Amino acid sequence: MPNNTLSKIVQPFSPEEITAFRKDTEGCANIIHLNNAGASLMPDPVTQSILDHIKLEASIGGYEASALQQAAISDFYVQAARLFNARPGNIAFTASATDAYTRALSSIPFKAGDIILTSNDDFISNQIQFLSCQKRFGIRIERIRNAPEDGVDLDDLEHKLKTLHPRLLAITHIPTNSGLVQPVQAIGAIAARYDTLYLLDACQSVGQMKLDVQALHCDFLSVTNRKFLRGPRGTGMLYISDKALQVGLEPLFIDMRGAEWIEKDVYKQRPDAMRFEDWEFAYALVLGTKTAIEYFLQVGEDRVWQRVQELSSRLRTQLTGINKVRVLDRGPELGGLVTFTIAGGDPVQLTQALLKRKINVVPSYRKFAVIDFDEKKVDWALRASPHYFNTNDELDQFIIAMKEII
Amino acid sequence: MPNNTLSKIVQPFSPEEITAFRKDTEGCANIIHLNNAGASLMPDPVTQSILDHIKLEASIGGYEASALQQAAISDFYVQAARLFNARPGNIAFTASATDAYTRALSSIPFKAGDIILTSNDDFISNQIQFLSCQKRFGIRIERIRNAPEDGVDLDDLEHKLKTLHPRLLAITHIPTNSGLVQPVQAIGAIAARYDTLYLLDACQSVGQMKLDVQALHCDFLSVTNRKFLRGPRGTGMLYISDKALQVGLEPLFIDMRGAEWIEKDVYKQRPDAMRFEDWEFAYALVLGTKTAIEYFLQVGEDRVWQRVQELSSRLRTQLTGINKVRVLDRGPELGGLVTFTIAGGDPVQLTQALLKRKINVVPSYRKFAVIDFDEKKVDWALRASPHYFNTNDELDQFIIAMKEII
Repeated sequence: MPNNTLSKIVQPFSPEEITAFRKDTEGCANIIHLNNAGASLMPDPVTQSILDHIKLEASIGGYEASALQQAAISDFYVQAARLFNARPGNIAFTASATDAYTRALSSIPFKAGDIILTSNDDFISNQIQFLSCQKRFGIRIERIRNAPEDGVDLDDLEHKLKTLHPRLLAITHIPTNSGLVQPVQAIGAIAARYDTLYLLDACQSVGQMKLDVQALHCDFLSVTNRKFLRGPRGTGMLYISDKALQVGLEPLFIDMRGAEWIEKDVYKQRPDAMRFEDWEFAYALVLGTKTAIEYFLQVGEDRVWQRVQELSSRLRTQLTGINKVRVLDRGPELGGLVTFTIAGGDPVQLTQALLKRKINVVPSYRKFAVIDFDEKKVDWALRASPHYFNTNDELDQFIIAMKEII
Repeated sequence: MPNNTLSKIVQPFSPEEITAFRKDTEGCANIIHLNNAGASLMPDPVTQSILDHIKLEASIGGYEASALQQAAISDFYVQAARLFNARPGNIAFTASATDAYTRALSSIPFKAGDIILTSNDDFISNQIQFLSCQKRFGIRIERIRNAPEDGVDLDDLEHKLKTLHPRLLAITHIPTNSGLVQPVQAIGAIAARYDTLYLLDACQSVGQMKLDVQALHCDFLSVTNRKFLRGPRGTGMLYISDKALQVGLEPLFIDMRGAEWIEKDVYKQRPDAMRFEDWEFAYALVLGTKTAIEYFLQVGEDRVWQRVQELSSRLRTQLTGINKVRVLDRGPELGGLVTFTIAGGDPVQLTQALLKRKINVVPSYRKFAVIDFDEKKVDWALRASPHYFNTNDELDQFIIAMKEII
């Protein structure tokens, strides 16, 4: 099976490095955290940067604190640009992945009959929003066929781009409900040949691997920061390409950050991606995000991805060996989300039983992934999502616990 | 001049009470904070509730922390309902006032020719969004004439509701740029007689006074929490009336919190106001908001409003006595935002000179309030906004500093 997203074998983390990462993360001493696809454990420097700014706000005032920290806040854009291989002027900070995604979606002036081309594995909230746009604007939703090995069929993608002339191509890099990693390099290379806007939801991939927007050929890239990036809850980011900025796309509900009010009936949009931001932020969380990005880049994107794939592959093998367990993940490439179901089991009881043993996983339900779960003929799954700071010993403890519970 | 929003004279705070409020607020020991209309100082219990939850997240995981605090998070809706005299099912938590406002605005399926009726003093971001909706949907913007004493002319409001049949009436309770308090009791009473949706932006009034949505007769009420309510930055709230919920209004970009994905091409909206929320929040800030509401209700809404009016009235009188200073506030009733300009002054230099003396105020520019500032023939103003924990002594120190600087 080809390794699509890691071009070279990199130096694995040494045991000493893993120990150091774990010492940097208070939560590692308390729990076995296999819910990194929900919200990972923040490294202590991230936590501290949030706490420091909240305290500063209490001490001198909220506006005065952000003014004092202006240089660090500006540096958030520099760090995010490094993360995505973009310019700071292509980055917008948002309140969540949904918030980032819908700002991009809202910027497209859909007309009746316009087509959104998406996959069968796009994130639930995106699917709901496409349906809402169908109801409101009379757009059409078309879905790319899945390949036999799962993931979008590239021939069908190209055929539909060519024949349907969609207004928007919307792809979720890694679904919330399976180990699948969509072949985004190939998708981007095809999309780049067509005059279709391309919105990539990288919510679950950011922090697992390197995301290079130049190689991905997307017009928009939306992410959350609390998952594998190990940033704060209630935060997200949106990358907007120069092309999308130059054609003047702006969020439907642009505010005084994104535009200047010139005359009674005239406003003027900003030239850069801040056009997609709102005026108000929790600046403590902006600073926490900046620290999380710096931490991730310091740890090393390719080394993280290699380890996440190793740990999750090991976990799938271990789970497959347990009676009654069925591992659900399939695709041309698999990432850090390990999903499985247990014959005769109850997802809430299982999760609770693991939580009592201080092991964090989450249940996932059909309603989160209607198309995928119907195809797999399951109503629910458990999702265990290791990250680079997890250890083989933790995986073994999880497997022992699973055997006991079942 | 009638006191529109305070029906009875209430017991003023004793000096001991003010001292206690200030002891509860770390920032009071450091600065003279007259920027409560920007972001107020958080009371220590608010700060602490935020810090506690961030630490909990770092300790056991973000999802696990919110699950553990579920009862307190649910209680946020109970407290917000108390604040607005609504039911918990009418409340949505949002990432900012803009976020709250645009969720409401996005829920209205505007058609070409639909009219938004607003005032000359509506908030800049709202005005920009109306213009964006004009561009996108072909709606029309109509503005209610101002009364001679400033504030909307109630006869013109009624006339325009009757003859224009607007789809939406949009009013900002207290503008960001002046002391004006719109006569919202009278506006609501008139609006209630017409079949027009009514969206009230109470961003600057929440935390200054009691806001009773039953008396205000609004369909939507949007607020921020960082200003006079003394909550965290990066937070807001939206009240949605039963009427708006029952006719099925939902945000255009509804996500998996607001709707359930049923079948491939079908979703079902939630019955209550959570329909207007996104899935992801910074729960530390939800808990901080809950604490801020409880604190405000404990201090006493009517007593706060009486004191804010007293302090700001005193400040206007003191400022009027300074050479070169022109106080800009006018209206049927005045609130806690005191705006003034200084002949020959520079707003940035003035603000910086005050900051050096540990006094917090902010400049306000024409571009924040094009219509109002053009009418007043000013390019900028300084805005000083006292709150109930400020003292006469602090106001005197500010006046002395102003005289020195000028």
